[in-house]
Amino acid sequence: MIVLEQPEALRSWRKARTGSLGLVPTMGSLHAGHEALVQASLQQNDHTVVSIFVNPLQFNETQDFDSYPRPLQEDEDRLRRLGTSVLYRPKPAAMYPEGFETTVQAGPGGGGFEGEFRPGHFDGMLTVVLKLLLQSGADRAYFGEKDAQQLYLVRRLVEDFHVDCEIVACPTQREADGLAMSSRNVHLNPEDRVRSTALFQALSAARVLFQKGERRPQALEQAMQAVYRQAGLQAEYAAVVDDRTFQKPAGESSGNWRAVTAVRVGSTRLIDNLRLDAGD
Amino acid sequence: MIVLEQPEALRSWRKARTGSLGLVPTMGSLHAGHEALVQASLQQNDHTVVSIFVNPLQFNETQDFDSYPRPLQEDEDRLRRLGTSVLYRPKPAAMYPEGFETTVQAGPGGGGFEGEFRPGHFDGMLTVVLKLLLQSGADRAYFGEKDAQQLYLVRRLVEDFHVDCEIVACPTQREADGLAMSSRNVHLNPEDRVRSTALFQALSAARVLFQKGERRPQALEQAMQAVYRQAGLQAEYAAVVDDRTFQKPAGESSGNWRAVTAVRVGSTRLIDNLRLDAGD
Repeated sequence: MIVLEQPEALRSWRKARTGSLGLVPTMGSLHAGHEALVQASLQQNDHTVVSIFVNPLQFNETQDFDSYPRPLQEDEDRLRRLGTSVLYRPKPAAMYPEGFETTVQAGPGGGGFEGEFRPGHFDGMLTVVLKLLLQSGADRAYFGEKDAQQLYLVRRLVEDFHVDCEIVACPTQREADGLAMSSRNVHLNPEDRVRSTALFQALSAARVLFQKGERRPQALEQAMQAVYRQAGLQAEYAAVVDDRTFQKPAGESSGNWRAVTAVRVGSTRLIDNLRLDAGD
Repeated sequence: MIVLEQPEALRSWRKARTGSLGLVPTMGSLHAGHEALVQASLQQNDHTVVSIFVNPLQFNETQDFDSYPRPLQEDEDRLRRLGTSVLYRPKPAAMYPEGFETTVQAGPGGGGFEGEFRPGHFDGMLTVVLKLLLQSGADRAYFGEKDAQQLYLVRRLVEDFHVDCEIVACPTQREADGLAMSSRNVHLNPEDRVRSTALFQALSAARVLFQKGERRPQALEQAMQAVYRQAGLQAEYAAVVDDRTFQKPAGESSGNWRAVTAVRVGSTRLIDNLRLDAGD
């Protein structure tokens, strides 16, 4: 595994190679969810680049950016063990040099949910993802379903701008009790760790209801809220969206529904989601 | 010359060819300014694609969009005569299909001047330029210096997003009396056509002053305003910018200064610009 820090170095490395390239964009603090993305890329491509970049542009809270875990050596060792070709670890000044000013603007699908509670987050995320895709010239890029709205917007980005890259989604990896794996889980104290299972329980409650035939979004959302009340938590949102637009479902159709939720557990903000009409 | 209308068709055409590709993005209504861009591309590349797309996203006035000249057959004949490889003429529904929602956002360099008087114009322009660059996979793209702020922003776009394409600027083409060639000049009635020379005269007055040693932006701007008063015109703006930021010059440095201006002559809005420290 080689470690690169400069966009030009990554581009030169790519141009000197034939064969397909998979990119796994991460913010580091790697867990089993990231490992699944890297494994998928290794299987499907001749080369795999994993980027680690805690992107200042997509953090709406300085405190969240500062406290975001950065176990650099552990991440590097893990990626080497997995068989990654390149660890790409640019510094902020390399990604946003003096004079940088053009950004990507998410459309209406980025307006609600995470977009509402984290203003500017998706514009920053899309900007860095576009930069990483075009810097690397990747043929495929890998994203987790845990960040469902991000995945939706990245798919739109690639289609709307004609980026020549296939977006591959990988299922959310969960702890034994259902908690979605996340780099932010390390911030949970033991008591909050127990309460954090409420997210998956709320989503599962909505799915059970859906599978029993419930098709009123409001009823599904109330089922989620009931779980949170029981756990003494208050959701930032607990909603049903149409996966094809990331908007609240319009009309009677109930295909492609996904339940999405965000909750603060103690001082840690957690998100999760579940397709209602599918196994995952 | 072949005519293509679909993004996928353009991409397939490109992928089936080796050699370098030059792209000349236009809105049609071609004049000698466009011809110079096409000639430059033909000289420097194995293939040349000229796009004609009157981009609804970059028009802030419906009336301007509707009345924008569209002499389709004339344009096609002219491009065939020049030796263009591909005329790419997508319909709005092909460029912005249902679900399209991601856009490019210009930075501070797009905030003043045209950006102030045409809200949203540059975001729409950058969005379509990025789409055209990535659809075509062009190695070089050609833009006229007449739209200096557009050129500045396109250069930023390509650098900020790492688009693998060289931006080539071509000098403004002018009529014998100095009027910058523009598709909108056809809207000028004979009397307005005479008054329209005031733009080049104002810019030239600033340049003469600059060459005599004047370095106060305000004094240079007053010289332009004096020309407009004489002609009975009122400028939307007549200003000096630093070409490296497209902001008003900061501090004492007077390198890379450009005079920029926009004026309504009758009902037609005209823009022009001139480097102050070069022959241009």
